[in-house]
Amino acid sequence: MSAEDDLIARHFSPIAGPGGLNLRDDAALLAVGKGEELVVTKDVLVAGVHFFADDPPGAVARKALRVNLSDLAAKAARPEGFLLGLMLPQSWGEQERGRWLAAFALALGEDAQAHRCTLLGGDTVATPGPLAVSITAFGVVPGGRMPLRSGARPGDVLLVSGTVGDAALGLKLRLKADAPWTRALGVIERRHLTDRYLHPQPRNALAPALLAHAAATMDVSDGLVGDCAKLLATSGCGGRLELDALPLSPAARKVLSADPSLIEVVATGGDDYEVLCASRPEEADALIAMASQAGVALTVIGQVTEAAEGFATWQAGAPVTFAKQAYSHV
Amino acid sequence: MSAEDDLIARHFSPIAGPGGLNLRDDAALLAVGKGEELVVTKDVLVAGVHFFADDPPGAVARKALRVNLSDLAAKAARPEGFLLGLMLPQSWGEQERGRWLAAFALALGEDAQAHRCTLLGGDTVATPGPLAVSITAFGVVPGGRMPLRSGARPGDVLLVSGTVGDAALGLKLRLKADAPWTRALGVIERRHLTDRYLHPQPRNALAPALLAHAAATMDVSDGLVGDCAKLLATSGCGGRLELDALPLSPAARKVLSADPSLIEVVATGGDDYEVLCASRPEEADALIAMASQAGVALTVIGQVTEAAEGFATWQAGAPVTFAKQAYSHV
Repeated sequence: MSAEDDLIARHFSPIAGPGGLNLRDDAALLAVGKGEELVVTKDVLVAGVHFFADDPPGAVARKALRVNLSDLAAKAARPEGFLLGLMLPQSWGEQERGRWLAAFALALGEDAQAHRCTLLGGDTVATPGPLAVSITAFGVVPGGRMPLRSGARPGDVLLVSGTVGDAALGLKLRLKADAPWTRALGVIERRHLTDRYLHPQPRNALAPALLAHAAATMDVSDGLVGDCAKLLATSGCGGRLELDALPLSPAARKVLSADPSLIEVVATGGDDYEVLCASRPEEADALIAMASQAGVALTVIGQVTEAAEGFATWQAGAPVTFAKQAYSHV
Repeated sequence: MSAEDDLIARHFSPIAGPGGLNLRDDAALLAVGKGEELVVTKDVLVAGVHFFADDPPGAVARKALRVNLSDLAAKAARPEGFLLGLMLPQSWGEQERGRWLAAFALALGEDAQAHRCTLLGGDTVATPGPLAVSITAFGVVPGGRMPLRSGARPGDVLLVSGTVGDAALGLKLRLKADAPWTRALGVIERRHLTDRYLHPQPRNALAPALLAHAAATMDVSDGLVGDCAKLLATSGCGGRLELDALPLSPAARKVLSADPSLIEVVATGGDDYEVLCASRPEEADALIAMASQAGVALTVIGQVTEAAEGFATWQAGAPVTFAKQAYSHV
């Protein structure tokens, strides 16, 4: 048995789903029901870029899976399974690799089970570079019903799930734990922010509400302002985003009280993994109610306008401009 | 527009298929016909490990796609589409990146079209490490009919497609172009071997023949001897592989005449990307004939036995053992 087979048998076969053929084949099988369409998405995470090299293996596993689940959530798809691509540093010793993989696979298996998205297969290779994880996730939607980014039209309302800015503040906190603005935070609030950076909360529970009432949807991962601009541009519309309306966690509220300029981090920082959507005005209440019943808050944060009006971010009754609208991964 | 969006719009949207939604959404759609099952596979290639950092961008594109197509070929699946994960070195300047991407995307688009496997989406990130490409490919098979590694049984014959050893010899040639054994080779033979390393020839044309007549199938990518041992182990069988029966290219024949010890490289080197399969003895002729009509040679190279007999590689009437059966990527 080669080192690669041994690694698979030891760490990944125990957490694989039945379609994965015990990870002992060249490919995996996925059943797609009659009348359903398959939704596929892929995200790559690199140590030192998308997470810290010394993040716990379990946090890396959860983040790698959940950023993909968040894409499925935004497309109202029910998660079905995923493939795992692992690039392990050649510099790791055998013991180090074994320990890391054991913790990674344990957390990945638990998280996959919790989100009903089973490991189907993948590829593990050695790299002279940093650790990197590439997950491809599969979900299903009723045929012809996947909401697109392009479905918004003038008059629609813009909504976002959960709270925004926590992860970006959590990252900032992690990079400089003693910055003046952090003094406003207690232990629990610090932990909330840093945990939101480590652990995206994919909004897969929103799927039925989005299928029923959303006109356009998108995953918010690169900063709300930039992602909002993208959704509107793809829909051929303009729009207005109201910063005063953004849903904030108690921790983020404290941060903004201490340093109001950090609204820029909240509005343009990445890693929110919330769902941005547009809804016809007459459907917004039903959408919000259905989301609420599924346990996810949706908040109205703006409005879709004609393309000629452009896209603007407003605060306290006046337009504001930020230096950088979004985080780019390249 | 962010750098990432610009890169996608410039290089990848022009080569994307309709299910990719012009690469302007969070995910892509794939239709799976009634009575069909989806086959998914993923391979990760890292510069300096799976290809040379100075390989032409087009060769990297073709290899990354074709190693995945080869997995689909081995599972008798008809290619449908793929997702592309690209890790681009942070050290590349903007011009260098643009030039590389233009050549990469051009070749990828052409190869995808030639193999009827369209780009559906993906993710592009920057890395402090080397260039890496992670492709996830999708194919379809008639429901319940995908051939597995586990279907062989005692009495079956073992067959392999095309020729083996060319890519491993091509790699060896590239690493040491003036080794004594290379003197036997002319320009065309050298080019044949090095090209086989750069450009796998996925045997997707075999799919109907495998569906009709194969009992067990596997992609040969990590060396024939080790992969054969894997197929047999997964099937719970033993077997006998006859090295004298291996299908060799004229170039490989010349190499072995010059240095017979290189049979070890031929039999255990990686990167063949041929299909290994087992067939009931009474179906072997029909399998070979159907493959031949599809333009792919299949050659009988051994036999499946009871597990108790173990697996052995034979040459000139005697068992031979190699130091290393297969290439492991970790």
